[in-house]
Amino acid sequence: MTKDLQDYLNKEARVLSDKVIKVNSFLNHQVHPPLIQAIGTHIAKRFENEPITKVLTIEASGIHIAYAVALALGVPFVYAKKSKAITQSGVYSTSVYSFTRQQKYEIAVAEEFLSPQDNVLIVDDILAEGAGVRGLLEILEQADASLVAVSVVIEKSFQNGRKMLDDAGYPVYALARIASMSPETGIKFIEESE
Amino acid sequence: MTKDLQDYLNKEARVLSDKVIKVNSFLNHQVHPPLIQAIGTHIAKRFENEPITKVLTIEASGIHIAYAVALALGVPFVYAKKSKAITQSGVYSTSVYSFTRQQKYEIAVAEEFLSPQDNVLIVDDILAEGAGVRGLLEILEQADASLVAVSVVIEKSFQNGRKMLDDAGYPVYALARIASMSPETGIKFIEESE
Repeated sequence: MTKDLQDYLNKEARVLSDKVIKVNSFLNHQVHPPLIQAIGTHIAKRFENEPITKVLTIEASGIHIAYAVALALGVPFVYAKKSKAITQSGVYSTSVYSFTRQQKYEIAVAEEFLSPQDNVLIVDDILAEGAGVRGLLEILEQADASLVAVSVVIEKSFQNGRKMLDDAGYPVYALARIASMSPETGIKFIEESE
Repeated sequence: MTKDLQDYLNKEARVLSDKVIKVNSFLNHQVHPPLIQAIGTHIAKRFENEPITKVLTIEASGIHIAYAVALALGVPFVYAKKSKAITQSGVYSTSVYSFTRQQKYEIAVAEEFLSPQDNVLIVDDILAEGAGVRGLLEILEQADASLVAVSVVIEKSFQNGRKMLDDAGYPVYALARIASMSPETGIKFIEESE
């Protein structure tokens, strides 16, 4: 899967600069379902021996990936909702700063869907600065739920998200780790032995 | 499927008033993947003889349903993105009024993902006033793409969305049609012969 995904990215992703990669023709605007199904099955396989009770993601671009993983694991998934203000009761919530949009937004999860008994796999499409994942981790803490790992499809390893998670001791599993990239030379991946 | 879904709604949905039904424990916040898979397979089966090239939905709560339908049909899906302002080029966009949130927002689809050659199945979780679906129909018109049908999991038949689509001549397929409901007496469905 990891090699297949690298091939897929080499072929279908568009590298616009050394920071920006567009994957919206198959991952997060138009979506290619067989790819997502393969990704979901692969991530689920990796964590099949963990006592995961729930998959957690954030709307919108993590939803189909969380669904594919959760279906393969046989557990429900929950997606944190974005909103402008925390005015709701009965929710865990925190604010997230989006580097892409350069604005803050709130994310929320209803209290009834996360409990101290939950072992949670966080799933998302892309790990860059890690702001979204950090928000989800805060919500897990509020719920006193346990983290099993953070799993993402693509990691931009040259940005701060992975380092932040490594430093804090959270297990991370990224299917494709991008060391560097440019429109001229394409994508350079970090190769790992599984 | 239709009967199974009615049973599911009778058991798991919470009717808060004669207008408001909460399905966020299994459909649009926490999600029960086997239910979504069954729904996706069922909708795909219904349209298997149509020359569908793409499934179209709107973020966030339509995404997992569109994925399940598109996977079963063997076509890509596209989700329209919500944003605050139309400042992008290269997109089809329109404004949608949310009755739930009482505010306007913009939805956009990149032009490259819809063309006059596309035969589109629109999919969403709930049809109420039909504002979201109307926005997607406007985007189809801008793209000069063809509509095959609109398919939703739950239709609140006592609100205006279904009538608006029927009057405009658009084919609609709703898995569960709610004629009326109340916290005391529960949900009354419109029964249809298939």
